[in-house]
Amino acid sequence: MKVNQDVVGKEVLNTEGLIIGKVHDMEFDEETHEIKSIIVKKGGLTSTLNISKGENVVPFDMIKAIGDKILLKDAFADDFLI
Amino acid sequence: MKVNQDVVGKEVLNTEGLIIGKVHDMEFDEETHEIKSIIVKKGGLTSTLNISKGENVVPFDMIKAIGDKILLKDAFADDFLI
Repeated sequence: MKVNQDVVGKEVLNTEGLIIGKVHDMEFDEETHEIKSIIVKKGGLTSTLNISKGENVVPFDMIKAIGDKILLKDAFADDFLI
Repeated sequence: MKVNQDVVGKEVLNTEGLIIGKVHDMEFDEETHEIKSIIVKKGGLTSTLNISKGENVVPFDMIKAIGDKILLKDAFADDFLI
């Protein structure tokens, strides 16, 4: 799966089906090669103005599925506040 | 290390110090989270015209160092032909 072509830009949904943002980047560990997290930015005005607030680092373990949208696991649903 | 901010766009050099292209994307395994390879595009006219030729998939194991530039290991130097 390609980072930019397949993942970056995808909408991220919590378990309630609410869009919490879009994938802006991904973080990996240089030594282990492992993807550690996705960086999710809330859309709208703040992202247009390139304000760094409204950015969340979501551990890759919290991802349930990567399809047309990215679905998060239950555990993350309530904690996710921007 | 962030994929887009820190890696994508960096120049990739072989052991002879020759620029073989720039990182265009990275591929990861969805199950293991592991970065499998970097996708390197030769610069210049072909990339401007968005021609898909001139793209190489370089296994992550072939990377020696990621600094201001990305350096490849010896083993890859001679095989790298676009």
